[in-house]
Amino acid sequence: MAARIIDGNTVAGRIRTEVAAASAELTEQGHKPRLAAVLVGQPHAGVVYARSQARNCEALGIDYELVQLSEDCSADGLARRIETLNADPAITGIILLLPLPDGIDPHQMQHRIDLYKDVEGVNPANIGLVFYGQPIIAPCTALAVREIVTETGIALRGCRAAVVGQGAIVGRPTAVLLVQADATVCCCNEFTDELASYTRQADLLVVAAGKAGLITADHVKPGAVVIDVGINRLSVPAADGKTTTRIVGDVDFEKVREVAGAITPVPGGVGPVTVAMLLRNTIEAARKQRSRTR
Amino acid sequence: MAARIIDGNTVAGRIRTEVAAASAELTEQGHKPRLAAVLVGQPHAGVVYARSQARNCEALGIDYELVQLSEDCSADGLARRIETLNADPAITGIILLLPLPDGIDPHQMQHRIDLYKDVEGVNPANIGLVFYGQPIIAPCTALAVREIVTETGIALRGCRAAVVGQGAIVGRPTAVLLVQADATVCCCNEFTDELASYTRQADLLVVAAGKAGLITADHVKPGAVVIDVGINRLSVPAADGKTTTRIVGDVDFEKVREVAGAITPVPGGVGPVTVAMLLRNTIEAARKQRSRTR
Repeated sequence: MAARIIDGNTVAGRIRTEVAAASAELTEQGHKPRLAAVLVGQPHAGVVYARSQARNCEALGIDYELVQLSEDCSADGLARRIETLNADPAITGIILLLPLPDGIDPHQMQHRIDLYKDVEGVNPANIGLVFYGQPIIAPCTALAVREIVTETGIALRGCRAAVVGQGAIVGRPTAVLLVQADATVCCCNEFTDELASYTRQADLLVVAAGKAGLITADHVKPGAVVIDVGINRLSVPAADGKTTTRIVGDVDFEKVREVAGAITPVPGGVGPVTVAMLLRNTIEAARKQRSRTR
Repeated sequence: MAARIIDGNTVAGRIRTEVAAASAELTEQGHKPRLAAVLVGQPHAGVVYARSQARNCEALGIDYELVQLSEDCSADGLARRIETLNADPAITGIILLLPLPDGIDPHQMQHRIDLYKDVEGVNPANIGLVFYGQPIIAPCTALAVREIVTETGIALRGCRAAVVGQGAIVGRPTAVLLVQADATVCCCNEFTDELASYTRQADLLVVAAGKAGLITADHVKPGAVVIDVGINRLSVPAADGKTTTRIVGDVDFEKVREVAGAITPVPGGVGPVTVAMLLRNTIEAARKQRSRTR
């Protein structure tokens, strides 16, 4: 029996509807959410991300302000700009767009973001508070994974889970959120011996390794929920003899869907849900500002 | 073949010798380490801990200052006292003794401790930085586990590890440090289904569940390194008809030592090494202060 395919756009659509309603309510109360995104120089990834955020925020009634700093901005200058945004009551959320220029440490700068305005949940102290079980704001991708798990209906307490890939942005925060929800979590990485011996035990398999085709049907327990966070750009030959780019995850989707109970596609799985979680975090942060200014 | 028994007192003794030498060197340079421990009221555990710290510090040439606040101290008052210690250049390390009075959140207060003076590594931001792979100071028990692993000579990269118990003080920080060292780590808790299916795969088994006798020989892979962080007080009948207290770990030591390759006893295993790591962190923090004041 083929797996249920979890449509990330449907899940994201539901969250976006909630976000739009919450945003309208906050605006009516005179607390319109306002997200400031700090961009240093013009790094490609940051520029693309900013454009997409601006569009998403506009669609849902959230103000978006791009704070553009020059490429030769110093760490101190950037830190001061973040402090100004922290202190500005009109700003309800702050994003620091990456990458930063060489010589500016991202974690030190993320650490400057007010804990209650850190809508990406990247301030090390916010990570630590998630870890302590007292989250203020958690990282978006990890929240997206948890949202998709909720969508499948499986219970996390006592769940046998495996997280493949232990990067700081996805794998580790996801593992922490799953541990926090009382799942049993095996944290696997590129040095894991006999990966399948872990993944085949897992009723929930989250993959964030950044390696196309890493997870095959042999890695998956029949009936398991498989969440593919990988995004890999493959060059494939096109009909006209040129090459074209195809986006795939870390999971061999066609083979694994024959074994799994539920699976997220790439694209159209975790990606749109992660964007939606950023917007939801933006609403949560705006609500927290409202409570603070009352 | 019976397991090698890792004597925590021997490991701790070696570290204490290093700490005493480093402390003498810092003192000679006019930077004598000075640890401030903040105690609110007279909670039994805090008082006992302070007494033992004072003794340990004195023995190794570290100044120890007990900052006693009254039981009815407010959260703001405590926060201000921590800020004063943060700003005092003579104070190189700060410990906040627990428990705090009801109504004062420990994590919020730990978050006030200067990252570079946080010798217990409990500030949520320090936890987050460990998590990001950029530690300033890591939690002592997790460091003690890693020190013992080093002592056994097993390599952590690619190591099959299991951590049983996911408390915020021991289990979770230990799991993070092991992940950070590229081990494959299964995080098990009291809801884990078929615990032995995880622990029997592990070449490194760390147990911090707080449940006497939880780990039996059947849970252990032959030849594995077993590190027992549990401390349980059992009442046992004494010869005179009264009862006496016996301290045991989470591991059935006598049975498991027949199977394991190496094992830590309780008491005399992880405990003394943890105390030694606090002292080593105190030296590290003092060195960091010295660099900052140069």
